Amino acid sequence: MQAWASARRLEGARIGLVPTMGYLHDGHLSLIEQARRHADAVVVSLFVNPVQFGPNEDFEKYPRDEARDLARCEQAGASAVFLPPVATMYAPDASVFITEERLSAGLCGARRPGHFRGVCTVVAKLFNLTLPHVAVFGQKDYQQAAVIRRMVRDLNFPVEIVVAPIVREPDGLAMSSRNVYLSEVERRRALGLSRALQAAAACVAEGGAAAAAVRARMAEVIDAHALQLDYAEIVDAESLEPVAEARRGNVALIAAQCGRTRLIDNRIL
Amino acid sequence: MQAWASARRLEGARIGLVPTMGYLHDGHLSLIEQARRHADAVVVSLFVNPVQFGPNEDFEKYPRDEARDLARCEQAGASAVFLPPVATMYAPDASVFITEERLSAGLCGARRPGHFRGVCTVVAKLFNLTLPHVAVFGQKDYQQAAVIRRMVRDLNFPVEIVVAPIVREPDGLAMSSRNVYLSEVERRRALGLSRALQAAAACVAEGGAAAAAVRARMAEVIDAHALQLDYAEIVDAESLEPVAEARRGNVALIAAQCGRTRLIDNRIL
Repeated sequence: MQAWASARRLEGARIGLVPTMGYLHDGHLSLIEQARRHADAVVVSLFVNPVQFGPNEDFEKYPRDEARDLARCEQAGASAVFLPPVATMYAPDASVFITEERLSAGLCGARRPGHFRGVCTVVAKLFNLTLPHVAVFGQKDYQQAAVIRRMVRDLNFPVEIVVAPIVREPDGLAMSSRNVYLSEVERRRALGLSRALQAAAACVAEGGAAAAAVRARMAEVIDAHALQLDYAEIVDAESLEPVAEARRGNVALIAAQCGRTRLIDNRIL
Repeated sequence: MQAWASARRLEGARIGLVPTMGYLHDGHLSLIEQARRHADAVVVSLFVNPVQFGPNEDFEKYPRDEARDLARCEQAGASAVFLPPVATMYAPDASVFITEERLSAGLCGARRPGHFRGVCTVVAKLFNLTLPHVAVFGQKDYQQAAVIRRMVRDLNFPVEIVVAPIVREPDGLAMSSRNVYLSEVERRRALGLSRALQAAAACVAEGGAAAAAVRARMAEVIDAHALQLDYAEIVDAESLEPVAEARRGNVALIAAQCGRTRLIDNRIL
């Protein structure tokens, strides 16, 4: 992978990276499209990274479909697909890890200890292996994108980060590889997340609103959809610090359990 | 720095990095010489990295002489010198750090908590800023070189690591910027480190020897020079695990306090 990327660089090509865990949906394809706009050669990585999953999470059952992913990458105009085996990515005695200590403290970071350590580590590895000029991440994982931007800043990676908007199903559900886990009933309930975010946006449409009231409104919508709320927060778009007064430009983030499936979504107000 | 390095790379030049904390001595110059053998363009970084110093260590009084360092770099044939201000290297809210969890657990890592976290973090930053094909480190900091090699392996940095032999004063003292701290009496006592390592080498010259006996012999020599032993260990050259039976190819490492100055040295047996 490094040899291929180095050769492209020496030819003067601009390399774009789209890091994914595979099982590609239209959200991923929009990232590849964005990458093609910013680069000459697009690398899509397909790697379900064990280090970012907790011991009781869904690493083993995470959906995989390599053949379909390869076809979709080709169709979408990727120049290369990188599918490293786990044993190639992590030596049995791997001992070097990257941690982000501020932005990853709350939200999903508080619920998934070690998650962003795994994300930072694998993304740094993918940067070093694919040598991109630009890498595209989805806004769907808002906290992840913020943490990666911080890593790029603090470790001086020579990589530009582009964050692409969330792609939604016609009824509003944010696309996610994990949506495949949902039963028909759960699929309907799952709309609670995007509707809660709509309600949050409505709260600030006329100006500021107390964040506590906005959070309560989001929790109400989640309840009404028979989901179990994990968190509903209004934070500063950069620092991810909770705000007292919700305003336009803040970000509403939500996580909820839908049966056995944990779903996340967010919206810039 | 990145723009300069990228331009050299696009010209097809091979970049060598020699990361230093400045106050250059002949040991550093030998690293620059090695780098010139492995690269077309050599970057020397001069940066006293606050993050690798503990709260009670010598960051503030660490010796500095920028004008002399620049002259020595030019003389030694460096193509570029990188002297970033601390505020450029670390944002006030810097929050991303790299840790190595095995090789850095013992030896200096056990005595200097956070030291190798600081080393890994700054070296990764310097790699990303100077984009070297090869980086040269001194064997004097044996554990550091092992930790950096591990970081390069585990994070897939596209950088070759070269470790250059220790350069010694005519009487055997390993060159170190910190030797400038030594009084005349301390300078004589400081010979205890290299002599203890000689004694360790003599112990295994005829074959294996119990590591405990070799360590005791090293401690004796340190005592005889009125130094305060910090550690004397015989370890496996790769894993840095202490061995029970000392053999050729193992590494003897020693650290001792000489007045207010902490000195380290090592020798491959």
